[in-house]
Amino acid sequence: MHDVAREAGVSQATVSLVLNDVSGSRFSDATKDRVHKAVEILGYRTNAHAKVLREGVAGMIGFIGDSVATSPFAGKIIEGAQERAWESGLLLIAVSTGGDKELERASLETLLSYKVAGVVYASMYHQMVDVPKVLREVPTVVLNSEDQAGYFPSIAPDEVSGGFEATQYLLKAGHRRIGLINIESLESGLPGAVGRYKGYVRALEGAGVSVDPALVRFGQGSEPYGFKYVVELMQEPEPPTAIFCANDRTAWGAYQALLELGKRVPEDVSIIGFDNQETLAPHLRPGLTTLELPFEQMGRRAVDLILEGIKPQGQVELMACSLIERNSVEKIKESQ
Amino acid sequence: MHDVAREAGVSQATVSLVLNDVSGSRFSDATKDRVHKAVEILGYRTNAHAKVLREGVAGMIGFIGDSVATSPFAGKIIEGAQERAWESGLLLIAVSTGGDKELERASLETLLSYKVAGVVYASMYHQMVDVPKVLREVPTVVLNSEDQAGYFPSIAPDEVSGGFEATQYLLKAGHRRIGLINIESLESGLPGAVGRYKGYVRALEGAGVSVDPALVRFGQGSEPYGFKYVVELMQEPEPPTAIFCANDRTAWGAYQALLELGKRVPEDVSIIGFDNQETLAPHLRPGLTTLELPFEQMGRRAVDLILEGIKPQGQVELMACSLIERNSVEKIKESQ
Repeated sequence: MHDVAREAGVSQATVSLVLNDVSGSRFSDATKDRVHKAVEILGYRTNAHAKVLREGVAGMIGFIGDSVATSPFAGKIIEGAQERAWESGLLLIAVSTGGDKELERASLETLLSYKVAGVVYASMYHQMVDVPKVLREVPTVVLNSEDQAGYFPSIAPDEVSGGFEATQYLLKAGHRRIGLINIESLESGLPGAVGRYKGYVRALEGAGVSVDPALVRFGQGSEPYGFKYVVELMQEPEPPTAIFCANDRTAWGAYQALLELGKRVPEDVSIIGFDNQETLAPHLRPGLTTLELPFEQMGRRAVDLILEGIKPQGQVELMACSLIERNSVEKIKESQ
Repeated sequence: MHDVAREAGVSQATVSLVLNDVSGSRFSDATKDRVHKAVEILGYRTNAHAKVLREGVAGMIGFIGDSVATSPFAGKIIEGAQERAWESGLLLIAVSTGGDKELERASLETLLSYKVAGVVYASMYHQMVDVPKVLREVPTVVLNSEDQAGYFPSIAPDEVSGGFEATQYLLKAGHRRIGLINIESLESGLPGAVGRYKGYVRALEGAGVSVDPALVRFGQGSEPYGFKYVVELMQEPEPPTAIFCANDRTAWGAYQALLELGKRVPEDVSIIGFDNQETLAPHLRPGLTTLELPFEQMGRRAVDLILEGIKPQGQVELMACSLIERNSVEKIKESQ
């Protein structure tokens, strides 16, 4: 009853009333549907698990990552994939190769020999990857990256719409002088750097604000770049009133620089980040408004695709980043 | 040549001279030993890998973790275990159970059915764990935790010596009024909380400084507790000149509180942390001096024990934490 209520997002009392079809209880069809669907899902899970426990051996989905399993960034990818696999009675077994190609080859051959139902081929950050051809023997999904050969289906964050949304949020708060400290140069070709920049430009142009190159900097995604470039930006003849830091670590450097300059966030300068790193963004003072990468959802979706038996046609599925509002952005004051 | 030099920690020129036994080149026996040992290790690895690649299937060591693989804290445990396993031509395959006992049971049965060479049973943080009995069928090591039944060998950080070393470091800098903000109450029984406290007391007593309960607080390991308790400690009639924050997150809260109080780290108050969280400690301003948990070494050691075929006798192997010096501790001034 408790699990059904949680799955359906309703109270236990509601579950009880709906399931017992108590006359006189008035719930919308949507609520009733949610409860019945939750029962179905949980029943399905329970059956899948009972089968696994009866037979003693679960089917497996392999998860090969460069260093995604050992980095502090993308653990939620594995969590999402793991949960989705287990809902269908499958285990997710992860091998972390640290980028070692020989280890990767041995891992893949071993996984294939154990007849895994599919393989998730994941990267620590969004990039174009060279996927081993041997994976064509098994349903494979490229995760948090894109197959540069255009063969396997890929799932990655929608960087452009994320950059657009971050900038749009600052525009809606009335800002027009909006700086950008990007995570890498555009020449790097990194989807995160190129996409977030594109989103920034698109949002400004959509609002009739022209892009001022004096307000744009290209860092390397870590604190010192946020620090250094904020100091530079604040020395501009017309400094920005808001800055889009294209990752949270850069935003942290920005906070530190503003503090040293005697400026307050958000009263003097608004800051928006990107990533929603759980060990960082909520703990900054003030809490950082930022875009969250859809790690958990991407992990779940990759396993969905394997279970659905999707055909590889090089399709890239981009998943939206969510805006997480905290307290680092303020409406612009008249005087600015 | 490059790999041998790296393994031995010497230059490529040295490797060349030692291996070719160039007359007149004068290296210590220790250096020569290092080079020869590196050649041996790498040869062994290459052979192990060649065998794996020839046979197509690697042996496996299972790694079952609660949420260690998906948390941002202990990825280096997996990295260490993975590397050590692969040096012997074995794959480390990780399953993250998120604490779900049914999933854990299915995972273990599946791993055992695939004839893993052993199992590493790991936890996200140091605690007493209830290890499934089915693991008695296979060489098993409890990692970053201790088997509460006292059966399996366990590997865990040496919390007491870590707490001792942190406090000793402050004492050596001349501090006598040393505060402690612990990560949990002593009643919690958490080895990290109890051990670090013991180390603190032992160091103070060893230096003839009596423990002042007014300078000790018990938080919950996160920023707000560091913040709140530093504010309290600084209101004491005789405030501390240095504070041992029993984890880095608490130390971050301490920094934030001191900033709001207009106090500088380390000029006004010295701070030492615990954990050396890579996304936090080096990036604080000033960089945080802290103790590093031996994650990578513990991961390696767990696989060592499995490969050595150790007998389970409930032995607990504690591994030392290393002091990482940055800039948050200063010698006490005469005036204080």
